[in-house]
Amino acid sequence: MSVFFYGFLFGKENPDAFLIVTKSKKLKNKFMYIENINSPADVKKLSLAELEVLGEEMRHFLLKKLSEHGGHIGPNLGMVEATIALHYVFDSPTDKFVFDVSHQSYAHKMLTGRKDGFLNPKSYDEISGYSCPAESEHDFFEIGHTSTSISLATGLAKARDVKGDDGNVIAIIGDGSLSGGEAFEGLNNAAELNSNFIIVFNDNEMSIAENHGGMYRNLKELRDSKGSCSNNLFKAMGMDYVYVEEGNDVAVLIDAFRKVKDIDRPIVVHIHTLKGKGYAFAEQNKEAWHWGFPFNLETGESSVQPGGPDDDYACFTAGYLLRLMRLRENLVVLTAGTPTVGGFTPDKRAEAGSRFVDVGIAEEHAAAMASGLAKAGCVPVWPVYGTFIQRAYDQISQDICINKSPVVMLVFCASVYGMNDVTHLGLYDIPLLSNIPNLVYLAPTSKNDYFAMLEWAVRQKDYPVAIRVPGNGMVRLQEFPDADYDYRCYKMRKKGSRVAVLALGSFFQLGEGVVDGLKDALGIEATLINPRFITGLDADMLERLKSNHEVVVTLEDGILDGGFGEKIARFYGPSAMKVLCFGIKKAFYDRYDVNELLKDNHLTVPQIVDDVKQILEQSAC
Amino acid sequence: MSVFFYGFLFGKENPDAFLIVTKSKKLKNKFMYIENINSPADVKKLSLAELEVLGEEMRHFLLKKLSEHGGHIGPNLGMVEATIALHYVFDSPTDKFVFDVSHQSYAHKMLTGRKDGFLNPKSYDEISGYSCPAESEHDFFEIGHTSTSISLATGLAKARDVKGDDGNVIAIIGDGSLSGGEAFEGLNNAAELNSNFIIVFNDNEMSIAENHGGMYRNLKELRDSKGSCSNNLFKAMGMDYVYVEEGNDVAVLIDAFRKVKDIDRPIVVHIHTLKGKGYAFAEQNKEAWHWGFPFNLETGESSVQPGGPDDDYACFTAGYLLRLMRLRENLVVLTAGTPTVGGFTPDKRAEAGSRFVDVGIAEEHAAAMASGLAKAGCVPVWPVYGTFIQRAYDQISQDICINKSPVVMLVFCASVYGMNDVTHLGLYDIPLLSNIPNLVYLAPTSKNDYFAMLEWAVRQKDYPVAIRVPGNGMVRLQEFPDADYDYRCYKMRKKGSRVAVLALGSFFQLGEGVVDGLKDALGIEATLINPRFITGLDADMLERLKSNHEVVVTLEDGILDGGFGEKIARFYGPSAMKVLCFGIKKAFYDRYDVNELLKDNHLTVPQIVDDVKQILEQSAC
Repeated sequence: MSVFFYGFLFGKENPDAFLIVTKSKKLKNKFMYIENINSPADVKKLSLAELEVLGEEMRHFLLKKLSEHGGHIGPNLGMVEATIALHYVFDSPTDKFVFDVSHQSYAHKMLTGRKDGFLNPKSYDEISGYSCPAESEHDFFEIGHTSTSISLATGLAKARDVKGDDGNVIAIIGDGSLSGGEAFEGLNNAAELNSNFIIVFNDNEMSIAENHGGMYRNLKELRDSKGSCSNNLFKAMGMDYVYVEEGNDVAVLIDAFRKVKDIDRPIVVHIHTLKGKGYAFAEQNKEAWHWGFPFNLETGESSVQPGGPDDDYACFTAGYLLRLMRLRENLVVLTAGTPTVGGFTPDKRAEAGSRFVDVGIAEEHAAAMASGLAKAGCVPVWPVYGTFIQRAYDQISQDICINKSPVVMLVFCASVYGMNDVTHLGLYDIPLLSNIPNLVYLAPTSKNDYFAMLEWAVRQKDYPVAIRVPGNGMVRLQEFPDADYDYRCYKMRKKGSRVAVLALGSFFQLGEGVVDGLKDALGIEATLINPRFITGLDADMLERLKSNHEVVVTLEDGILDGGFGEKIARFYGPSAMKVLCFGIKKAFYDRYDVNELLKDNHLTVPQIVDDVKQILEQSAC
Repeated sequence: MSVFFYGFLFGKENPDAFLIVTKSKKLKNKFMYIENINSPADVKKLSLAELEVLGEEMRHFLLKKLSEHGGHIGPNLGMVEATIALHYVFDSPTDKFVFDVSHQSYAHKMLTGRKDGFLNPKSYDEISGYSCPAESEHDFFEIGHTSTSISLATGLAKARDVKGDDGNVIAIIGDGSLSGGEAFEGLNNAAELNSNFIIVFNDNEMSIAENHGGMYRNLKELRDSKGSCSNNLFKAMGMDYVYVEEGNDVAVLIDAFRKVKDIDRPIVVHIHTLKGKGYAFAEQNKEAWHWGFPFNLETGESSVQPGGPDDDYACFTAGYLLRLMRLRENLVVLTAGTPTVGGFTPDKRAEAGSRFVDVGIAEEHAAAMASGLAKAGCVPVWPVYGTFIQRAYDQISQDICINKSPVVMLVFCASVYGMNDVTHLGLYDIPLLSNIPNLVYLAPTSKNDYFAMLEWAVRQKDYPVAIRVPGNGMVRLQEFPDADYDYRCYKMRKKGSRVAVLALGSFFQLGEGVVDGLKDALGIEATLINPRFITGLDADMLERLKSNHEVVVTLEDGILDGGFGEKIARFYGPSAMKVLCFGIKKAFYDRYDVNELLKDNHLTVPQIVDDVKQILEQSAC
């Protein structure tokens, strides 16, 4: 299963809700239309009444697949009618659609030759959860991060104009994505195109969780006044503007899109849709149904139970931080639109009150605000996905690290065991973060390590600290680790000779296996080290290893380039010590099988033992 | 001299202009006020008439220092009155100012105990060109990148509220900086603070160059209507709003700031100022006078002559791209608010017409738009400073590299010889860019290399390419290098034995020196290699070196962590080859002396030769 998500799924409630779609009489008939849609041309052949039935069919299959497979639920259900209308009016791929973050692109996939990925369970995995040019000429980009659609689309439009080509360019973006600054950069620049450019602004009144920010008051004004209020964010950004209240009415949408088709200037079409439309559970608890694991269609119950504090780092983190908030009045937890990454489900957010700040999808702002909080004496803690922290590199470097602001960043899903869609990989954070000066990047190997590191991080004032939350499940040790992290000491876990294994973070358990394997296969009592620090070498310990070791093995759960092992290789470069670095080869991977990826990268115990054996044999020659 | 800038200085014109300030009668008197300003408390003691004289004195000394020392001219001249009024009304540091990008912070420095840095030429270098907490309790952050002030200030405001502290929080941001998305993320979130928060929006109708984007039409409407037009960007973002037309009138500004002092909600005070105010050259040619090298105060002539295509990579680049535009209709050059980085002075922008796109200070948008252009068949070329490319890491990774869009990025000032202010260092781009999959990062060593790489980059369609423009001046070779860059081959420049020197990019000439030094000192005929590729190892050549070399030396013009040398060290990790990596130690440096920094990092020929000698002696033991 593809593990694509923006927020964990917790707290599905309301067992009294009923299934709107499956109660529909129309769907008791044989499916007539969706089975015959092989391209947008087939959509154009249907009558208005038939298009409405098509919508119900699509919603039925969307729900069936999502309940069996998981995926983005709410945003896709809300965009069924608009997607039908877009393909009815415009001529894809001559007219080009760019779906922001792809959370609302499933209906588009169903209408562009990829219906089997929804109708046929055997084909579910054949299409990705994101727009994908490899699948279809109707997709132009791999997109999985928010707020980029307008900018990408302005590139398409500018190229059209430069080359003298024809066609409409249409960016489809939701109200949640609008909080990301790049969307404004895009709006500001789109308004300067003196040519066709259409932004379909899909306003379902929700981000992943609730929306946050002043502009949402203007969006409400616009909805309440049916787009007629005098103050208008889009017009203020220089765009032309129309409002469509009935964002789930195919006929109204067709009419609206026809009016802007082939327009000679940039325009925003603001459509008001219902997130989760057609599935009562999803309509009523929009956050819980933004994305979901497989679930029971009748009851809404998830097939995957959320973890507790003893088996889930997110849940443990929220519990820890909430307890700490009671003791320390200056602790503030931040999120950039993904509150549940650190376990802050709605109930826990309510408990934290004003000490929990959701800035919306705005990682740059989150990083800079955290720096401000730290400078003014607060302890800011920012739980964040590894794939999204890269959206704030400059702010982490400039605002946090140059300023030595003691911000605590908890980096989740930074692991080969994290999300496996190409846009959401957790393999690049070590080169990204660990090469920024002043930052202390810690790699816990267990719950005990993690707790001790958190304790140290929130109590010190000297460093920006990031903690790489293990991605390989929660390991608990009997032994309690030292909590002194302000000197750069690795932890010697087993003293041996000949071979030393530096097993970083979530690959520590792999290191234990390698040490056992070396004993079994070669009779070597190898040394095992928990480096704890991704940043900063323990030069003393590394130096001491030279006296009775021939080979140092490094293991890291991420790409090798720019990572931890290369620093060890540089350290030993001028010496006789042999260094073998194990990790993932630098590349983008899509929906990989984790065991295959590990095997392809020589990351199994037998492979590593064998590689070490070869080096030892070469040295002996 | 501190080399801080945002855009080179070209095209100072209008020799008929006269110096407003130095003709002022008032300044023929003995300076009375500025000499006695040791803190903001001293500002508050003056009468309105005295404050006006103070402003003229400050402007006089600003101009005197800038003409002798260089620095940001236009933005600081425009903010003199507003800064006086801010310090007159508010109580810094209890009330906290955050100056965006610091381009307009000089007057603030003059009034907060740092006047000597402007009045006394011997002290000019004692204060930085940016806000600096190490200098004064009135500065809270080191800031040199744009669009962050609102976000940083929301952190200060939130901390105040959480801790129950008092005081106003004031972010000062210019209209140019507003095009950066983070400023909107900040506005959106600031509007949610239910407490005091003041944004002084300094509208001087300019960015570094002219402004670009739809929102600037609304700002014009606001100015034209004196803030009364119905459509209002700031109100649409949820902010309260007031307009002040007389942004260079101390009395009016004092009145305006008094009205918002201690306000209980977020508000924008939109002040209309004149960039370059008080210096006719700067008022009339705002772009040329945004930042400048030292200049003749009477004539406006710069003390530094702009380079030509034979000695300046920027000028050469613009010339090359303009010629190519005539041949290829699909070439588009982009900039994010710094058009002159690639040599596009106003005349060259006019020549390029619509094929030159300035998106404003909006690096994220620039990267994504470039991807869109490439996907639709254009050849987008983006000249960009190394320090600013880090603002678009996520877009380079996601939108460009995952999508394999053949975008060409020209990375300027990425070198120890580049800008030396802590916020503008060019030392971190190799770890940042070279560890992103799919990207080809090239390091030319000469004008010839650069030209060949450019030629290849704009003609291929397979890779996103970045070229690290040499920072050590333009070197021209007799020999013309190969232009085949689509296989990963290093260039063997001199075949030798025992020691191989891999001298990357702008450190190639250092490598030549090392090879000479090894011969002189040790009689060794060392091998010299121009790696050309920062990304991708030439494994064949590296493998062949094993047969008759004992030591490989890597030289790179940037930090060592995550860089080029470490990849070489990893390659040779399992072998007997010794590797010595030379580069800069990971740290932030501020206003360094380049020769001292090189020496501190063992980057002189004698030091490197000596280090190699030691290794060879150890191996011999």
